[in-house]
Amino acid sequence: MTNRTPTTAAQTVQNALTTTFVNVDDMVQIVQRKGLTACLVGVADRIEQEFLRWEAFDKSARLAFHSTDGVVELMPIADDRQFSFKYVNGHPKNTRFGLPTVMAFGLIADVDTGAPRFLSELTLTTAIRTAAMSALAAKKLARPASRTMALIGNGAQSEFQALAFRDIVGIDTLHLFDVDPAATAKLVSNLQGQGLTLKVFASTAEAVKGVDIITTVTADKTNATIITPEMIEPGMHVNGVGGDCPGKTELHRGVLELGAVFCEFEPQSRIEGDMQQMPADFPVTEFWRVLAGQAAGRVSDTQVTVFDSVGFALEDFAALAFMQDAARELGIGQPIVLVPQSEDPKNLFGLLRTQPTAKVLPIAAKQAA
Amino acid sequence: MTNRTPTTAAQTVQNALTTTFVNVDDMVQIVQRKGLTACLVGVADRIEQEFLRWEAFDKSARLAFHSTDGVVELMPIADDRQFSFKYVNGHPKNTRFGLPTVMAFGLIADVDTGAPRFLSELTLTTAIRTAAMSALAAKKLARPASRTMALIGNGAQSEFQALAFRDIVGIDTLHLFDVDPAATAKLVSNLQGQGLTLKVFASTAEAVKGVDIITTVTADKTNATIITPEMIEPGMHVNGVGGDCPGKTELHRGVLELGAVFCEFEPQSRIEGDMQQMPADFPVTEFWRVLAGQAAGRVSDTQVTVFDSVGFALEDFAALAFMQDAARELGIGQPIVLVPQSEDPKNLFGLLRTQPTAKVLPIAAKQAA
Repeated sequence: MTNRTPTTAAQTVQNALTTTFVNVDDMVQIVQRKGLTACLVGVADRIEQEFLRWEAFDKSARLAFHSTDGVVELMPIADDRQFSFKYVNGHPKNTRFGLPTVMAFGLIADVDTGAPRFLSELTLTTAIRTAAMSALAAKKLARPASRTMALIGNGAQSEFQALAFRDIVGIDTLHLFDVDPAATAKLVSNLQGQGLTLKVFASTAEAVKGVDIITTVTADKTNATIITPEMIEPGMHVNGVGGDCPGKTELHRGVLELGAVFCEFEPQSRIEGDMQQMPADFPVTEFWRVLAGQAAGRVSDTQVTVFDSVGFALEDFAALAFMQDAARELGIGQPIVLVPQSEDPKNLFGLLRTQPTAKVLPIAAKQAA
Repeated sequence: MTNRTPTTAAQTVQNALTTTFVNVDDMVQIVQRKGLTACLVGVADRIEQEFLRWEAFDKSARLAFHSTDGVVELMPIADDRQFSFKYVNGHPKNTRFGLPTVMAFGLIADVDTGAPRFLSELTLTTAIRTAAMSALAAKKLARPASRTMALIGNGAQSEFQALAFRDIVGIDTLHLFDVDPAATAKLVSNLQGQGLTLKVFASTAEAVKGVDIITTVTADKTNATIITPEMIEPGMHVNGVGGDCPGKTELHRGVLELGAVFCEFEPQSRIEGDMQQMPADFPVTEFWRVLAGQAAGRVSDTQVTVFDSVGFALEDFAALAFMQDAARELGIGQPIVLVPQSEDPKNLFGLLRTQPTAKVLPIAAKQAA
């Protein structure tokens, strides 16, 4: 906002009560203008920064509402300055009706007043943050010389995983498999000209042979065993992304027994991760401890490492903050009137006595950068 | 939407992915056009209907994030058809900076797909639903001939309480007190010509003398004792609204010991209600049981009854559903693109390859009624 005159108290209130809304169209523009690589790397950096402040956050396992065909979740978190939450669903059958499996949006609010400040689409952003998180973990846990990755599950999230591992880990070759060949064909088409060697396989077993990293990002809400112990070779890193709610796993329990297992937030991962198959005392390390130097990551080139990812609210907090900065920097997003702006906040009733259009900003008014 | 031709699959998807947004301006229009009485009575009816379906809901205590000056809460709930949540804060000091104490918004989503359908302001709506809930409880719990009510705390919620009790309970006389005389003056001014006799008092003790119902709706986040046992006369009904989070109470524990205590959702109320002062086995009745005829309400004209209200997600579910119907009926609200609408839902990455404006609805486009 261009301030030629000093900010008045009324302006301060109006600023505090202005929520910036970033819709899907806006987010596509943000990612196109910054570039997907800059977003993947930037979100990974932001996640790393926030994970290093782990103790500063009021953390809880997400609240999940399960139904026959899917789950709806709220993922809140706060530090002493900002509160954020994400709304996200997971409905594997949605694609049969032409709807996305995962849809999300989220919010940042000020902790000191509770005012909502930034409301954003998070479907695209979730794909970016999940890939950024996976790649950040692999950068610390996989062998440093890792160049090949098997990508099992070639759906909506797969291109983002592929590019995050290219940009953050240095992967140059992908081994692809999906039970739906059309999904793989789409992935191959989307990744043409991206500097990656793409090899398509007819089964998971063939795809994972000889790779440095295995990433599973499948959608079925079942206790699947996509990866079994005999597929695992010494030194491999397993990035298990799709096993992320009760009754939805991808790794045979024997895979978890083969190596060191890392997770995001242990209380949530024990319920939702592939780890849900293991006893309550099964050893696991929260990944932030590795980042902070409080726990060992990989200890040898032959050790098997497993990142049992489920997605944690702090990753969305980081991604929202990154996108809020990007929206501000690029002047993208619109002000919406989500909460009342009145001269006397104790006089909520007074709102009903007014000509409403005089009291609120028009939604179409573009926010000044 | 006017359908002259049959709905295509693509239209079905677009309909399922269209979220209607009702901002503060829209909500003011809805309440002005329907009338506040119709909204109060309609929301109370809807709450009663939903409370009678109590067992059909996946219920949990709200998730609260406490900070020095306030609290931010998420209040989710679902049946097998719809999921809803409310974001709401409580920051008593906000009014010093010209900001509302309570600000809220919320969402309805489809359980079968997870698609967000209705995103709405809920600050005004929360005032309406809280008053509707209080009046519905008093209609069942207070003496049928109740005509006078003391209203202690004359802030943002007080006019709504006053009018809900007029319209639903038959209250014709209000005894008013607030530590801030300006708040009372505002309330008196707002309630002129509303068919209520208004009497202003200099203390709570004087205000409550001889009334049928005492409503406390104060904001301070402290263990206050606004109402003490010696103020209570036989047959009174106490509607305790402002004691609604840990460390925030209004009733002396002796008041709770005087009569039968009713609450919304027991696991939440034991933590947040005035009841937080009482031992874990202190007897309390969930109000839905009274509505359903499973538990006694008031048993005599001399019994003291207490509704220890904290606000429960099911009330917001009901209020959101009422406002969604009203918005649809009046053609108010705008379509927003909160989740991606693409031809191939597995091709999220493809969004980044497009001219975004061609893929999404413009935010300014008015939704056809």
